Amino acid sequence: MSGEWLRRWRRGGPAERPRGAPAAGPGPPPPALRYRRPKFLPGGEEEAPRGGRAVRGAGPERPLPWGAGYAEVINAEKSEFNEDQAACCQISVRRREPGLEEDEEWLILCSTQFLTGHYWALFDGHGGPDAAIIASNYLHYCIKQKLEEIVGGITEAQPPMHLSGHCICDSDPQFVEEKHIHAADLVVGALENAFQECDEVIGQEMEATNQTGGCTALAALYFQGKLYVANAGDSRAILVLKDNIVPMSSEFTPESERQRIQHLAFLFPKLLDGEFTRFEFPRRLKGDDVGQKVLYRDYFMEGWGYKTVEKADLKYPLVHGHGKQARLLGTLAVSRGLGDHQLKVIDTNIEVKPFLSCIPKVNVFDFALHDIKEDDVLIMATDGLWDVLCNDEVAHVVRSFLAENRTDPQRFSELAKCLVCRARGKKRGHQWMLDDSHEASYDDISVFVIPLHNREED
Amino acid sequence: MSGEWLRRWRRGGPAERPRGAPAAGPGPPPPALRYRRPKFLPGGEEEAPRGGRAVRGAGPERPLPWGAGYAEVINAEKSEFNEDQAACCQISVRRREPGLEEDEEWLILCSTQFLTGHYWALFDGHGGPDAAIIASNYLHYCIKQKLEEIVGGITEAQPPMHLSGHCICDSDPQFVEEKHIHAADLVVGALENAFQECDEVIGQEMEATNQTGGCTALAALYFQGKLYVANAGDSRAILVLKDNIVPMSSEFTPESERQRIQHLAFLFPKLLDGEFTRFEFPRRLKGDDVGQKVLYRDYFMEGWGYKTVEKADLKYPLVHGHGKQARLLGTLAVSRGLGDHQLKVIDTNIEVKPFLSCIPKVNVFDFALHDIKEDDVLIMATDGLWDVLCNDEVAHVVRSFLAENRTDPQRFSELAKCLVCRARGKKRGHQWMLDDSHEASYDDISVFVIPLHNREED
Repeated sequence: MSGEWLRRWRRGGPAERPRGAPAAGPGPPPPALRYRRPKFLPGGEEEAPRGGRAVRGAGPERPLPWGAGYAEVINAEKSEFNEDQAACCQISVRRREPGLEEDEEWLILCSTQFLTGHYWALFDGHGGPDAAIIASNYLHYCIKQKLEEIVGGITEAQPPMHLSGHCICDSDPQFVEEKHIHAADLVVGALENAFQECDEVIGQEMEATNQTGGCTALAALYFQGKLYVANAGDSRAILVLKDNIVPMSSEFTPESERQRIQHLAFLFPKLLDGEFTRFEFPRRLKGDDVGQKVLYRDYFMEGWGYKTVEKADLKYPLVHGHGKQARLLGTLAVSRGLGDHQLKVIDTNIEVKPFLSCIPKVNVFDFALHDIKEDDVLIMATDGLWDVLCNDEVAHVVRSFLAENRTDPQRFSELAKCLVCRARGKKRGHQWMLDDSHEASYDDISVFVIPLHNREED
Repeated sequence: MSGEWLRRWRRGGPAERPRGAPAAGPGPPPPALRYRRPKFLPGGEEEAPRGGRAVRGAGPERPLPWGAGYAEVINAEKSEFNEDQAACCQISVRRREPGLEEDEEWLILCSTQFLTGHYWALFDGHGGPDAAIIASNYLHYCIKQKLEEIVGGITEAQPPMHLSGHCICDSDPQFVEEKHIHAADLVVGALENAFQECDEVIGQEMEATNQTGGCTALAALYFQGKLYVANAGDSRAILVLKDNIVPMSSEFTPESERQRIQHLAFLFPKLLDGEFTRFEFPRRLKGDDVGQKVLYRDYFMEGWGYKTVEKADLKYPLVHGHGKQARLLGTLAVSRGLGDHQLKVIDTNIEVKPFLSCIPKVNVFDFALHDIKEDDVLIMATDGLWDVLCNDEVAHVVRSFLAENRTDPQRFSELAKCLVCRARGKKRGHQWMLDDSHEASYDDISVFVIPLHNREED
């Protein structure tokens, strides 16, 4: 099932292939992707001059769905390119006739019934900008395709056991009811499968064009009255509502996924090739520690214990460091994301990919259960923002900015710029500083501000 | 490290070997365990007559620590024995001198410094009563031993990098501080390791005596002002406080651990020996389903999708059924616990143990952060209670019973009996019925009621 779509794509692809996406097919490998900024930024897809780290924002010329705001800034010379990418669009989901075979595409194309979703996504690249660019080109197509595959199940009050809708077994309804399966569970499944398919697409594209690198992916999908936020990586989405803040994602880092990662190394020790130790220690061990009992954790432990240090424990730890310094295999700062199929630990043959997951955790927010107020917004941002501003600080900026800017039609764009400016800070000498004289973010910073009140209007 | 203690035990064991525990050593295998009820029950360790499912409770003759209450009832002829077991005791933790080697036992035994913990535990056996009996004999010894191994770290304000307490590296304090490691994390780690060791002990004892079966384990440890609840299985502990209910455990069943179990089968397909399918379906598939698209979930999915049914999907699912009917490999209703080392799927060579975890999830409640009222209690019970009473119903019984029985010195014992009676119901014809004419529990039921207000007194 998976990958089939890519093969069809490569044979010529669906009619709606995104403009600008490389047309792949038999023959020589496709050319490497051209670096670009998101299409909806004014001033074209070129990079802004880097010197002053000017903040770029979406303008009134190309309004985003729902009047959402977007802004970004490049890093402080950490990498050649801004490795963040962004995408947003409507997703039109065609309703297939029950029992229609997948290869009867002409029938699908004749279909006139649609469901519409709205999609926003951020991708934070590492090891080069390419994976993030491919992901921003393809993920919404993967989601669209996965939703179309199950649309017959979504439009029922409860998804039927058989997608055809025909009940060939009297016990069907009862069983499905027992499991409490709702349409939302199908959308969650579609997002999980879409991320996996997009990862496969990236792997094949990157191999074909001899590119490397990976990216995190944070995608928000508004579909049939619910907001789905799917996250794989260390970007973050929060709802800033009038009276509270609702986290819509959690971060996946070597620290937060330590037990999963260590467990895999326990099951397949060869993945470490004798170069790393599976155990976690609070600090790197040294020769003097051998024979001593030191604090450690193994895969099954949430708590800590003491172990007598052996020589093998002096190897570099599989997961090491704390907070932003935490690394997987000394290499990656995130434990989920797309790409990195070719990534190896430097100077070794150890592959990082087996320890990475491309599966997002999906959180669902049901608007039917909440009274959404005029200034309620979804904030999505890459780690460049959250490294220096916590949820409460962001919510404070959001609420005070919107209260002071009631009438500006560009208020959500301006708010996105304001948030990026806050996190970037100001240059003093060679340093970027926050207002409170803490160090500002040196990373790429990208922010969506998505108003939630008038979401049905367009 | 692990298992060393068992070997020492078998060589003759520590001075405090529990009375009644089998003395194992070289020579013929130890005799099979004698079936018994918990020692603290009045009327000896014999089973009560089964006919009326009389509720047995701890009485004033052998008061439990803190004046806690306990009651139990046997199942309605589901199995020959009451397969639940219970244990409670003080745990004296000797303080070892820093740097003392493990084999210098004479020095340890001379030590006069103690920390004292209080321990209560429930074990729900399956496939025979033996694993639960061994666990109720041994788990507190495993915990005691694991706490003694780390006691040098617990008595510090923050655990030192080196158990010896000697700082051989200037960066030690800083690094340990960054990881926010506290004494409570060492106790959690000790509990995790103790469950693992107890599981190993059970495996070796059961093999030596040619016994089979397993058990769940729910253990509460009060230690240095904190309550630790460690759970592996489907028993449950809740705090019933004046104004709220605090769940202190969550259940581990084939349903709640579906993704972990499916993932293992994905990584090691041979574990299923071609007899089971890894996929979950809402109902068992039949020949008619082949070629249809039906609801399914794979290991990476929290949501649901549709897959085209192949012939291999007609195999029995690795995880199947819903609620109390959910089974792992068609065999077990729990996914964590102790024992089951020899368990195979009937008529196959498929081992169940690889899919089981003996590691508990540990929840911590810090009494320093709460104002504990006179009638606040910890309720621990096997699934026989929770199958028919929810947390709110139990809390309602607890609060109203204690409000109406203010002066009875046996009130917590009486409350335990009251809860067991409620869940067992009354016999009407051949059925056991609740007051509201729903079916009552046919299972073994065991309940601890542990008052929390005067916990420092003894």
